[in-house]
Amino acid sequence: MANSQYEYVKVFEQDPILLPNTWLVVRIDGQSFHRFSSTHEFEKPNDSRSLHLMNRCATYVFDQVNDVCIAYGESDEYSFVLRRDTEYYGRRAYKLASSIGSIFTARYVFHWSEYFPDIPLKYPPSFDSRVVAYPTVKNLRDYLSWRQADCHINNQYNTCFWKLVQSGVTKADAEKRLSGTLSANKNELLFTDFNTNYNDLPAMYRKGSIVVRDYVNEEYMDKATSEMRTRRKMRTVVIHEDLIGDKFWNTRPHILGDKK
Amino acid sequence: MANSQYEYVKVFEQDPILLPNTWLVVRIDGQSFHRFSSTHEFEKPNDSRSLHLMNRCATYVFDQVNDVCIAYGESDEYSFVLRRDTEYYGRRAYKLASSIGSIFTARYVFHWSEYFPDIPLKYPPSFDSRVVAYPTVKNLRDYLSWRQADCHINNQYNTCFWKLVQSGVTKADAEKRLSGTLSANKNELLFTDFNTNYNDLPAMYRKGSIVVRDYVNEEYMDKATSEMRTRRKMRTVVIHEDLIGDKFWNTRPHILGDKK
Amino acid sequence: MANSQYEYVKVFEQDPILLPNTWLVVRIDGQSFHRFSSTHEFEKPNDSRSLHLMNRCATYVFDQVNDVCIAYGESDEYSFVLRRDTEYYGRRAYKLASSIGSIFTARYVFHWSEYFPDIPLKYPPSFDSRVVAYPTVKNLRDYLSWRQADCHINNQYNTCFWKLVQSGVTKADAEKRLSGTLSANKNELLFTDFNTNYNDLPAMYRKGSIVVRDYVNEEYMDKATSEMRTRRKMRTVVIHEDLIGDKFWNTRPHILGDKK
Amino acid sequence: MANSQYEYVKVFEQDPILLPNTWLVVRIDGQSFHRFSSTHEFEKPNDSRSLHLMNRCATYVFDQVNDVCIAYGESDEYSFVLRRDTEYYGRRAYKLASSIGSIFTARYVFHWSEYFPDIPLKYPPSFDSRVVAYPTVKNLRDYLSWRQADCHINNQYNTCFWKLVQSGVTKADAEKRLSGTLSANKNELLFTDFNTNYNDLPAMYRKGSIVVRDYVNEEYMDKATSEMRTRRKMRTVVIHEDLIGDKFWNTRPHILGDKK
Repeated sequence: MANSQYEYVKVFEQDPILLPNTWLVVRIDGQSFHRFSSTHEFEKPNDSRSLHLMNRCATYVFDQVNDVCIAYGESDEYSFVLRRDTEYYGRRAYKLASSIGSIFTARYVFHWSEYFPDIPLKYPPSFDSRVVAYPTVKNLRDYLSWRQADCHINNQYNTCFWKLVQSGVTKADAEKRLSGTLSANKNELLFTDFNTNYNDLPAMYRKGSIVVRDYVNEEYMDKATSEMRTRRKMRTVVIHEDLIGDKFWNTRPHILGDKK
Repeated sequence: MANSQYEYVKVFEQDPILLPNTWLVVRIDGQSFHRFSSTHEFEKPNDSRSLHLMNRCATYVFDQVNDVCIAYGESDEYSFVLRRDTEYYGRRAYKLASSIGSIFTARYVFHWSEYFPDIPLKYPPSFDSRVVAYPTVKNLRDYLSWRQADCHINNQYNTCFWKLVQSGVTKADAEKRLSGTLSANKNELLFTDFNTNYNDLPAMYRKGSIVVRDYVNEEYMDKATSEMRTRRKMRTVVIHEDLIGDKFWNTRPHILGDKK
Repeated sequence: MANSQYEYVKVFEQDPILLPNTWLVVRIDGQSFHRFSSTHEFEKPNDSRSLHLMNRCATYVFDQVNDVCIAYGESDEYSFVLRRDTEYYGRRAYKLASSIGSIFTARYVFHWSEYFPDIPLKYPPSFDSRVVAYPTVKNLRDYLSWRQADCHINNQYNTCFWKLVQSGVTKADAEKRLSGTLSANKNELLFTDFNTNYNDLPAMYRKGSIVVRDYVNEEYMDKATSEMRTRRKMRTVVIHEDLIGDKFWNTRPHILGDKK
Repeated sequence: MANSQYEYVKVFEQDPILLPNTWLVVRIDGQSFHRFSSTHEFEKPNDSRSLHLMNRCATYVFDQVNDVCIAYGESDEYSFVLRRDTEYYGRRAYKLASSIGSIFTARYVFHWSEYFPDIPLKYPPSFDSRVVAYPTVKNLRDYLSWRQADCHINNQYNTCFWKLVQSGVTKADAEKRLSGTLSANKNELLFTDFNTNYNDLPAMYRKGSIVVRDYVNEEYMDKATSEMRTRRKMRTVVIHEDLIGDKFWNTRPHILGDKK
């Protein structure tokens, strides 16, 4: 049973290489999460346990794959940005997309019970993944802005929708009520009808989650004096800030800067 | 925060469509399984628990994705064949590869404790995935033959290697002893030194695992007479047979036949 | 001025390989031929000089590129079929499409004056080209049938249109008159109004042109007897036959047969 | 003979779209030009007629395809740079590469006799073409520098080689003599043995040819005074300058600047 007569089939395998010197974004997306979240009784409009679980998985990917310089997540999706000079997996498209998708999936199932201790996993969810190349910093930032604007728009809508539903309005009527409304109308509705200031809602819901390496103040004991002191250290953190404006990027030039 | 100014970034997304009217094979492959299997104390050269867990996950994919007509697995890899006329996910390459990879991964973690009740999962494994198009039945069968011949060659080598090691030979010496040996030499070694007939080893180790739909004899109670009878039913089964020769295919023409 | 610091730019070049074991079709298409043909006073609805020039160029490509087994042309387009086992240019897509397109273009300009001795070439035409893979003989034959059916439909329409116009009907009225008519109506119109039996028109107009290697009867002098005799020889020929039905293929099994 | 049953074959056609917002370079390359140039008695090491013919064809492409902002040629190759925001042919790879290749080829044959009035074209040459995407100005400039450095290296070598051969040295000995020599050695050889200062050779041979739009001083008659005056006008020009350094680009910011 020699293998040599069959090995020729390897010529059919094609693994496209992504254009060099472009930013690579691997985006994973929950599949059929509507059904998954309702089966597992997710809170509406946001379930913070699920978001923290997503962030946990994303942080793992971030720390595991050296060339990921920033990750952004909202709802059941996460985007991982690889530096433009990355040679991770030789920039092979399938390898990149499928590996990161699989690592993320595995972590989600693995850590589930830590975030949902009272809700057994009835079946495991899955995530598809893709990889996209962006040639410039502007294109990349616009991509991230697109996802954050999407987060905001969905969250504002869903917040109104579920407030209405929880107040007794039918789903159909809630939909009708919101149809065609502008952002300002929705904030007004929240404020007037539900005494809710949209901007007071948790930043994680409004802005999504950003995984980066950033300076944090860390306490430590000075051995000489046994006193507690504070020092600044670079750590992987999850933050919930606006990344559409320049401030986020200007204060963290290392994110898109060249690899040391 | 209108999204319209950022949405243009969608033009960067490219999801290649696989050539129509070709057999598609999605192959998932364990990543760093050497480390994973040693961390989780897999038996050598084969751990039947792990293989059964792989088969369980593969059977789930097989039943979930209608157009998969046969799947073949060995060691930490599995290949899923989609009919040549499949329109699953519009034959989009990333969607196909990443979804099947993610479903498989999720199931592996989810079912782990059923197959390894005594070994807690220390960390979850991941699988990369790819998709390849094969234009003819011959090419497809050669692909599957390639994997099954690979299974045989590896298993025969590993069986010898671990018999030697378990008998006290060092790993380096075992490697040296096997270097350059032919298939017949290895069978001879197993028989002479270890009183083992290679062909008596479990078929799952020698042939790998095949998931197909096949006729099985099923008992049922005849309600009229309350007697047990046997009927033939089409079921998803895992079998361990030779698929290199024609017999496997000739007796199961429905596998590669057209979709009803 | 060392070149080494710039050579890295080669990594940006990607030349996709077409799926092995598939039929490859390179189709060249005249660009802006409406303008070109009117500038050069082509006869309507068909200019036999132009078609013969196209056939001349196609025959050159056919003889030049060994793995082309059949070519089909109509109007300002030509399709070249390469055997499924071709390794011409390593099946690299750009090389294949651009080379054949360039050879064809060069020949068209080069031979122009032989076919249009009275019409100087005012400017040279250009042809774009593409290459497409077809996995089965059925797909390939359907492709060729598609082009030949297209030839027929266009020719029948154009024949009616120009008969009407040449009889004094305005172009707009001719278009109106033909709008919505079936094939049978058009034949009827030709017969009744113009005493023309569509099937008596030259086969080159109705069926397009096919370049193949075929057996032809060739006279030669028997040296022993000095008598002229006839022998059958394989030659490159241009024929105008139906290739949609089976007869064409059944009588020429060598066209799609394996390379010797 | 309805076409509808065959039209499905269109699904097999795939025309990849080049990544948006990247510089596109279409490079055409003479095929078998060694044979072509010797058949047509090209002068060695450079035939200025052939280079001027190449430039003529390139200028035509430059003027025809609006989004080409610079073209660079040497020997039997030419590179056409399309602006990063070009939507020419929807950035479809085959269309771009094959059209520009065909236009160039057609012009070469068409204009041949103007540049080689005494040498009839025995057969027409062909050019293959490809298209490559470059994400940044640096990558693009490095690409052009690569080609210009290549021009220099080849020209210097060929100049020495043919001087030696023309002085009676055999080709084999000339090759041996030049093997392993550095740039400075070659200049020395030219100066000492052939009294030739390399830098006095025509710039077109040393630097290749650049097609751009540039300001030129143009004379015109002032109608009021009937005096000849000079004005600066933007025209398509062919120049032979260093484009590796910054000066070329700094003095012509419009080349890589955004489209008006």
